[in-house]
Amino acid sequence: MHNVVVRKSSAMFPKNYENWYGGVRMIDEKDLKILEILRENARTPLTDIAEQLGVSESMIRKRVKSLENEGVIKRYTVVVDPAKLGYNSVSFVGLDVEPTHFLDVAIKMTEFPEVKFVATSTGDHMIMTEIWLEDGRALGSFIAEKIGRLEGVHRVCPAVIMEKLKDTCG
Amino acid sequence: MHNVVVRKSSAMFPKNYENWYGGVRMIDEKDLKILEILRENARTPLTDIAEQLGVSESMIRKRVKSLENEGVIKRYTVVVDPAKLGYNSVSFVGLDVEPTHFLDVAIKMTEFPEVKFVATSTGDHMIMTEIWLEDGRALGSFIAEKIGRLEGVHRVCPAVIMEKLKDTCG
Amino acid sequence: MHNVVVRKSSAMFPKNYENWYGGVRMIDEKDLKILEILRENARTPLTDIAEQLGVSESMIRKRVKSLENEGVIKRYTVVVDPAKLGYNSVSFVGLDVEPTHFLDVAIKMTEFPEVKFVATSTGDHMIMTEIWLEDGRALGSFIAEKIGRLEGVHRVCPAVIMEKLKDTCG
Amino acid sequence: MHNVVVRKSSAMFPKNYENWYGGVRMIDEKDLKILEILRENARTPLTDIAEQLGVSESMIRKRVKSLENEGVIKRYTVVVDPAKLGYNSVSFVGLDVEPTHFLDVAIKMTEFPEVKFVATSTGDHMIMTEIWLEDGRALGSFIAEKIGRLEGVHRVCPAVIMEKLKDTCG
Amino acid sequence: MHNVVVRKSSAMFPKNYENWYGGVRMIDEKDLKILEILRENARTPLTDIAEQLGVSESMIRKRVKSLENEGVIKRYTVVVDPAKLGYNSVSFVGLDVEPTHFLDVAIKMTEFPEVKFVATSTGDHMIMTEIWLEDGRALGSFIAEKIGRLEGVHRVCPAVIMEKLKDTCG
Amino acid sequence: MHNVVVRKSSAMFPKNYENWYGGVRMIDEKDLKILEILRENARTPLTDIAEQLGVSESMIRKRVKSLENEGVIKRYTVVVDPAKLGYNSVSFVGLDVEPTHFLDVAIKMTEFPEVKFVATSTGDHMIMTEIWLEDGRALGSFIAEKIGRLEGVHRVCPAVIMEKLKDTCG
Amino acid sequence: MHNVVVRKSSAMFPKNYENWYGGVRMIDEKDLKILEILRENARTPLTDIAEQLGVSESMIRKRVKSLENEGVIKRYTVVVDPAKLGYNSVSFVGLDVEPTHFLDVAIKMTEFPEVKFVATSTGDHMIMTEIWLEDGRALGSFIAEKIGRLEGVHRVCPAVIMEKLKDTCG
Amino acid sequence: MHNVVVRKSSAMFPKNYENWYGGVRMIDEKDLKILEILRENARTPLTDIAEQLGVSESMIRKRVKSLENEGVIKRYTVVVDPAKLGYNSVSFVGLDVEPTHFLDVAIKMTEFPEVKFVATSTGDHMIMTEIWLEDGRALGSFIAEKIGRLEGVHRVCPAVIMEKLKDTCG
Repeated sequence: MHNVVVRKSSAMFPKNYENWYGGVRMIDEKDLKILEILRENARTPLTDIAEQLGVSESMIRKRVKSLENEGVIKRYTVVVDPAKLGYNSVSFVGLDVEPTHFLDVAIKMTEFPEVKFVATSTGDHMIMTEIWLEDGRALGSFIAEKIGRLEGVHRVCPAVIMEKLKDTCG
Repeated sequence: MHNVVVRKSSAMFPKNYENWYGGVRMIDEKDLKILEILRENARTPLTDIAEQLGVSESMIRKRVKSLENEGVIKRYTVVVDPAKLGYNSVSFVGLDVEPTHFLDVAIKMTEFPEVKFVATSTGDHMIMTEIWLEDGRALGSFIAEKIGRLEGVHRVCPAVIMEKLKDTCG
Repeated sequence: MHNVVVRKSSAMFPKNYENWYGGVRMIDEKDLKILEILRENARTPLTDIAEQLGVSESMIRKRVKSLENEGVIKRYTVVVDPAKLGYNSVSFVGLDVEPTHFLDVAIKMTEFPEVKFVATSTGDHMIMTEIWLEDGRALGSFIAEKIGRLEGVHRVCPAVIMEKLKDTCG
Repeated sequence: MHNVVVRKSSAMFPKNYENWYGGVRMIDEKDLKILEILRENARTPLTDIAEQLGVSESMIRKRVKSLENEGVIKRYTVVVDPAKLGYNSVSFVGLDVEPTHFLDVAIKMTEFPEVKFVATSTGDHMIMTEIWLEDGRALGSFIAEKIGRLEGVHRVCPAVIMEKLKDTCG
Repeated sequence: MHNVVVRKSSAMFPKNYENWYGGVRMIDEKDLKILEILRENARTPLTDIAEQLGVSESMIRKRVKSLENEGVIKRYTVVVDPAKLGYNSVSFVGLDVEPTHFLDVAIKMTEFPEVKFVATSTGDHMIMTEIWLEDGRALGSFIAEKIGRLEGVHRVCPAVIMEKLKDTCG
Repeated sequence: MHNVVVRKSSAMFPKNYENWYGGVRMIDEKDLKILEILRENARTPLTDIAEQLGVSESMIRKRVKSLENEGVIKRYTVVVDPAKLGYNSVSFVGLDVEPTHFLDVAIKMTEFPEVKFVATSTGDHMIMTEIWLEDGRALGSFIAEKIGRLEGVHRVCPAVIMEKLKDTCG
Repeated sequence: MHNVVVRKSSAMFPKNYENWYGGVRMIDEKDLKILEILRENARTPLTDIAEQLGVSESMIRKRVKSLENEGVIKRYTVVVDPAKLGYNSVSFVGLDVEPTHFLDVAIKMTEFPEVKFVATSTGDHMIMTEIWLEDGRALGSFIAEKIGRLEGVHRVCPAVIMEKLKDTCG
Repeated sequence: MHNVVVRKSSAMFPKNYENWYGGVRMIDEKDLKILEILRENARTPLTDIAEQLGVSESMIRKRVKSLENEGVIKRYTVVVDPAKLGYNSVSFVGLDVEPTHFLDVAIKMTEFPEVKFVATSTGDHMIMTEIWLEDGRALGSFIAEKIGRLEGVHRVCPAVIMEKLKDTCG
């Protein structure tokens, strides 16, 4: 995976990137525009993107390929509505973990399909997750029988998500 | 937008959905399989999905259309790597807001492009957001000059995301 | 309303009540037994209680009357299942209130039919309530539009009740 | 136990219940009125309820039976005044429990007669209880000798209830 | 030790004590006045108290004796200035203790001469103490070597007292 | 008021006081012994103290006078049992105050007779108090009507004292 | 001020710096060694450094000059012992500030000579400071009269530093 | 190491130092001026200091020697910019440690070169540190693999430093 450098218009340009970096392709305004279109609808055909940017489809194909290869684009995915699938309990669940086990637990949490998001953070809980379950009782069982059995977890702090107002990954 | 009801295999079936609901289409195992494929790669061509499920493309097209119309599928999107775009400060930022202003502030937060996620929750902070910025100093300015100016915000609690280990939206 | 004094069997007798208090009727084991029966089923006919205690119905009637008049029995009520009535969001909601407004706010909270319980306490939040609503979104609106408009409330801390395992009032 | 669906007047009707659900009896305004009368006084004779609603007693009897069978009505109970029974220490007691033991401890707490309420929640403490004791010293002993001996409890956080202003269970 | 009942002037009279309690001596305004004089200066000669109250010294002697016997007066003591004795670190120290050990630890804390106050409470820490030491470094050692060695203590939370503005024990 | 310096036996000697300080009387072992006797019983006659120390009464009188003049001894007081005086609610009450008002509020708190202790501290609350009241309801009123009206107080955090196990002021 | 890039031995090399950056001088092991010597004693003569590294003094002079010009070295300073200067109260003081005023307050705090350290952080308090004062009473006054008067500060949370065990700035 | 006493101008003079202390050298205004110059630039030649104070260089040399010998000056050091050395994650890290291990852990933390500051304090965490690392991921590893392995550490609470606005050690 290559390194890339973003070159935005001067006003937006992050100050750490003011110099040309030897041998590294720069991300430019066109790349950012492509990402914006894909963020709105990841299934937009390349020809539509090409048309919107006024360039050839092959140029778009090449750039998208680069963005994928360089790791700027990590994945294309679908955003679903948990309630429509019967998940009435959507929660943030923070974990307090013995420091030695903290990275292991984070990795193990990613393996449960009910867990949609896992991050380590400097917040009140060093591991933050998002979990989708049928109802509060299922959440109670998931904590007692799944999370609680991971070695080193000594506190689990769930907080119910009342409403998601924005949810983008880019 | 129609109501839909999920029909999973009996073992997984959420107990609140045990009866046929009059006039409502049931989500079945095939729909769940389609969603799984799209979650992994939202750009998977319908013909590939059809092949994997052993059904016709037109049937997949019809089902995907239904999932979209019923609101099960909310959006197709791209997951990008913030560091590759020069965002070195990716944080969870919790807001404490005067109760009267709490929904307004949540809506206003969705309007900043730097804010990638906004939810209301029952956790330590009633509004939880994810914000991407260039560095810690930019985060300080964003808090003082953008968030701080929204009426009713009286505390802002940022927590840096050290590493995202899983990030799906379905 | 009279003062009453509990006289339990010696082992259980609270030590502050060891002496006869001039002119005050003592609550005895029979009264406690009546209360226990009513706690299990407040609609138990007096004749059934009389039979269980091996005394006359008129004696039970007199004692129940006394327990009501003395304020030992405050009310007979029905315990319902919120989920069966469409209340999918049952929460504890703690309020932080400016000290001057703290008693007013507690009283005003009792007036909302959605609020089932209000107490002042020495815990993390000086006012603790239980609120029944349709879903998380309704809870968000209730906080912003009802609670938030009471003068002096500056923080509202909801916590979703996952499951009630015991709920008696006596 | 059957499923029931609430049908309130249109303004109050919870939006998730807008359609007729096949084969499920709907709770209607009359049922809600019956519940309201019983909430105020669970010992109200059925004939009085019938009179207030302008229907026959046998109809009320049938409906009350249904509400009981469907689990809408869980129990009829009596609300007593703890102080009048010599309980001068009425507290909320939150428990922090090792996640694996969390459901066991909640169940064991329900078995103490002094514990009047037990719920699992997403709040500061995953188990919330209400406990009635003679005085603060008795609370100290109860924590050390009863709660503290349940396996997995590592923190007990009592908060004294100063005054209950509303206490309904429906 | 006898039970006593306070009889203050009607305005101040605590409402739980409105009736005569059989066989129990009432504390009256004269007793309260004696206590007030002793609170200001516990070494006030009885003749001075007698003079201030306009009664005989033998009557004061009898009353003081009763207040001592009934346990109203627990002790006469001296209030000293810690800084004048070289104690530059005067702190509140809260202890978080495993519930089973909570009463034992409280009792053991009373045995250290450096610990001037120990109470169990419903606050953030179930055991609250006041400790006098020479300086912050001595406090660190006291925590590590004395408090930390008591079985069941898992967190110690010191807070330095900046200034005592009032310190009475009655 | 003079400066005094403590001279304890070498093992106990606080390290900051190793040198003779010009012109300052040293507190020695005899002074500490006098203080210990007075701490146990502040009404001990000087002749008894003299006897216990094996010195003349006039020497004790002179030393006690010095301890008083130098401010080592601040006051002689009486320790009473709040429950015996009808105070069933004895609490620590922490105050969160706007920084500008913090010293004023501390001073105003000392003026209420119900407030027995006031200190400023570096703990969770910058002002810590101990308050004696008849019951929880009286505490609620005291917070709303007395403390809440002091300018700058925005949060009041009461914690009930379950039991005092040690309470010395020296 | 130029950009510099650190080139450490391969094992330690930070992964974001794997490529040569066009036109930017690399910090190498020799520079790191110079910094280490200066960290131990900032007054070490350049000739001593030259000798330790086995290079000429003029080369050291040139490198130190570069480190200063590039902003790697910000300042040479003296570490003093606050207690030896009569500062007996050395505290961390966290500030909770209205978000709009947060940067202003941080800047104003730097202007007090008693304030030795100011940083903005994502911790419990967005502004963290270190303050040196004579004693706890002086800290109380400083909070009330200096910090409290800065606009937007609504909570001040001091914590006394018991002992500094390590204090380097590089 | 000798004891020293500061003698500032009367307005600034700390009230505990008003008398001459037998045999102890007083720190005077000249000493404070020398410290101020060294705080700004620890490499200032003694001749420059002498000139600024209008005294001989040998007098300055003698005084600086005394300040060093008496421990007023602990060290001369260099302040570097962590970002310029590739440290993009500069954090405060608070540790919660079992009380018995609390001093050991503090000492062990000083031994890691990445840890720039260690103090014991009365704040939320009894050990406060400052740690410099390459990025958030490195911080996660450092916590899991270095800090987490120290015996007795049960919680690690990092907070990212957004910006240092003042950083002096004297």
